Amino acid sequence: MQKKEHILIIGAGLCGSLLALRLAQHGYQIDLVEKRPDLRKEDVSAGRSINLAFSDRGIKGINLVGLENKVKELCIPMYGRMLHDREGNTQLSKYSGRENEYINSISRGGLNALLLDEVEQFKNVKLHFKLSCQDVDLEKTKAVFKDENNNEIHFQANAIFGTDGAGSVVRKSMMQQRDFLFSFSQNFLTHGYKELSFPATAENNYAAEKGALHIWPRGENMLIALPNLDKTFTVTLFLAYEGGDYNFNNLTNPEIVKEYFEKEYPDALALMPNLEKEYFENPTAPLGTVRCSPWTYNNALIMGDAAHAIVPFYGQGMNASFEDVVEFDQYLVDSNFNLAEAFQQFSKNRKKDADGIADLALDNFHEMKSHTAKEIFLEKRKLEIAFETEFPKEYASKYSLVTFREDVSYAEALRKGRAQDHAILRLLKNNHLKQEASLQEQLLQVQQETHIILEEQELL
Amino acid sequence: MQKKEHILIIGAGLCGSLLALRLAQHGYQIDLVEKRPDLRKEDVSAGRSINLAFSDRGIKGINLVGLENKVKELCIPMYGRMLHDREGNTQLSKYSGRENEYINSISRGGLNALLLDEVEQFKNVKLHFKLSCQDVDLEKTKAVFKDENNNEIHFQANAIFGTDGAGSVVRKSMMQQRDFLFSFSQNFLTHGYKELSFPATAENNYAAEKGALHIWPRGENMLIALPNLDKTFTVTLFLAYEGGDYNFNNLTNPEIVKEYFEKEYPDALALMPNLEKEYFENPTAPLGTVRCSPWTYNNALIMGDAAHAIVPFYGQGMNASFEDVVEFDQYLVDSNFNLAEAFQQFSKNRKKDADGIADLALDNFHEMKSHTAKEIFLEKRKLEIAFETEFPKEYASKYSLVTFREDVSYAEALRKGRAQDHAILRLLKNNHLKQEASLQEQLLQVQQETHIILEEQELL
Repeated sequence: MQKKEHILIIGAGLCGSLLALRLAQHGYQIDLVEKRPDLRKEDVSAGRSINLAFSDRGIKGINLVGLENKVKELCIPMYGRMLHDREGNTQLSKYSGRENEYINSISRGGLNALLLDEVEQFKNVKLHFKLSCQDVDLEKTKAVFKDENNNEIHFQANAIFGTDGAGSVVRKSMMQQRDFLFSFSQNFLTHGYKELSFPATAENNYAAEKGALHIWPRGENMLIALPNLDKTFTVTLFLAYEGGDYNFNNLTNPEIVKEYFEKEYPDALALMPNLEKEYFENPTAPLGTVRCSPWTYNNALIMGDAAHAIVPFYGQGMNASFEDVVEFDQYLVDSNFNLAEAFQQFSKNRKKDADGIADLALDNFHEMKSHTAKEIFLEKRKLEIAFETEFPKEYASKYSLVTFREDVSYAEALRKGRAQDHAILRLLKNNHLKQEASLQEQLLQVQQETHIILEEQELL
Repeated sequence: MQKKEHILIIGAGLCGSLLALRLAQHGYQIDLVEKRPDLRKEDVSAGRSINLAFSDRGIKGINLVGLENKVKELCIPMYGRMLHDREGNTQLSKYSGRENEYINSISRGGLNALLLDEVEQFKNVKLHFKLSCQDVDLEKTKAVFKDENNNEIHFQANAIFGTDGAGSVVRKSMMQQRDFLFSFSQNFLTHGYKELSFPATAENNYAAEKGALHIWPRGENMLIALPNLDKTFTVTLFLAYEGGDYNFNNLTNPEIVKEYFEKEYPDALALMPNLEKEYFENPTAPLGTVRCSPWTYNNALIMGDAAHAIVPFYGQGMNASFEDVVEFDQYLVDSNFNLAEAFQQFSKNRKKDADGIADLALDNFHEMKSHTAKEIFLEKRKLEIAFETEFPKEYASKYSLVTFREDVSYAEALRKGRAQDHAILRLLKNNHLKQEASLQEQLLQVQQETHIILEEQELL
């Protein structure tokens, strides 16, 4: 089923590579263009987002292109949050009460390289690296790039996909289009992040428990760590740019950095022999949310971070982008490979889910850095895990709805998950949860309270 | 108390003119630069926003510069919403149960001209028209303009104010600033608007009741009308760009425009002899919300629509801008005329109120075009007017909090007003309001329910 249309995909990161692979499988003629060098030949990570959380929505995308077995080899399962207090005490808070529900730590570079290797098998795909998009002519479906030597290269296509990330040039071209009402927002948190690491131990083992996502919640700021296949951990510091006793603006010399880590993260500091070097060599990066609408103009469509960049706190950035590809593919098939129709349907229907996960990711920032350490939150999680263990088919927490229930849309996970959280917190705070009652009765109370809250929301 | 600093104000609309007047009164050296011609000499309205709603927060700004008596002559009081159904039946829904609480229809041009006349009295202000700002150098506090003949004109100042409206060039300069995390959003409604009119009658009288804001709510779309001093009304059609039986994209010839008005607004149509001409000559304009943060960089500050453009449905656009000037003035005085300190304080503290009125204005779009015609809404308004009449000091509706309580911040009006609406609708819907009870007891019920709702919000 060879398709005649010529497709230009701008951006060969995770989303663009998966999209190219799927469209190649359909038989389209594809140019996949990336501004950075080929990451299989040069290190392009630059100290940012070395590993990622990979879960059920992302797995859907990998299943779609038939790579589940190959990807599995890249995955390290994480079964819960390992919480670290200032004294170095740890406590595991499971992600789910159900068996087989866990998230995975995966290398961004490793996964991207695998996808590019697969894409390269297809004769109907041409891969181009080190071509930086300068401008997209949306009326004529043309794009102009510059190569390393500053030469202009032009591409003309039947359709253009912008999978060029949070700073998307394709999106900027849409925004500059006159007489086109393009809604757009970019919002930055008051916090930035910096990547650090735990090396492997002298015995070449993991320096900390491998099967968990480690968190050091400290109210306004936090440290997290995810395992890598090479037995290191990638550690990320989320810290305010200003305010408080310590912040990115005042951690300007090795002494004060060490002082801060000694005070807040002593057990982590003990595992970080390279802290000083990494802290001052790695960049401090901002945390932003990008939203826009519509995602299509004429024969162009933006997807993934280009359409909806989110903060990383739900570990859903890549998963959302992969789900984009799955949903777009469904619209494409349903329209009998009418690209224009699929562009419209995708732009119209997927937006509410992109907004949903953007909001959820912002919610989770507050939850991770602060709530995870609070008594009422731990009580809530304990109850939810008990519900999920005893009644696996009857209860799914907000975290489970977002992370493990790929059949539930992000928008619905947000709506229902927030109402459940509201219900449990209200019941706990008012001591309305009958302590003497059975777990089943308590579940019924939570379900009833959730129903009341959802009904009230309808009213307004 | 002559101030030595030289201030450049970009934009001599309502906000820039009031600001210039206030800063002139303080003795600063001011250049006030406007890209359009002097509206006192040429008509620059171009069929857009000919009149505005002017209420207590705006009056605060006018009082600050001592112009209350002169402005009063420009005002036409409107005491409530006159609702028109399809059969031409009308019903007045009062804005408040208290005496002396009403809003005013005022001419944008008339008010702006008055402010410019006052500004011109000051020797320390230079007024410049037809100079279009091209770029602002925020590091050097310089701006470059082009005149009618395309000549470049440069201004250098100690501080720059951007009061250059929703499309602010000063804001764009902030957004382009590297290494500055500037959050920004522009969001468009699916509706646009077009201005039309009712001329005066043959006997030179108002064609409709003068003392009300007229609304023809039709679910998804609506028509409104505000009186002018010359006995005309400015009429505004708010209509979706697409969808439904009639929209801006399909109202493309006089017959279908007439058909639409005959069907939806027959009593208004009877007062519109110039409908065809106006409909096709006046522009269709979009409705957008602009938010951003922070509002200051180095020695520059944006204010008014440049910092927070909102949709017009609460009639608060100008009032919010005038309140900006009042609040900024307070920070300036409190800081003993330290501009840098006042910029920081204003940017930090005023933002939540700008977000509040932006959200309130979006709420009111739905309320005006749809809810005003619903039974439960009319019942709610009746109850609120009764509370305000009988217990004027104990109850203020959301509308009153926003419009008449200039001592309550927009953020607080949003928080309390929404909770009250929620409480009354919940009580009415569930028939929990004791019908046999006295009005005082019903007020107590509403207050208690509001308190519960606010407490629940705190929890999350």
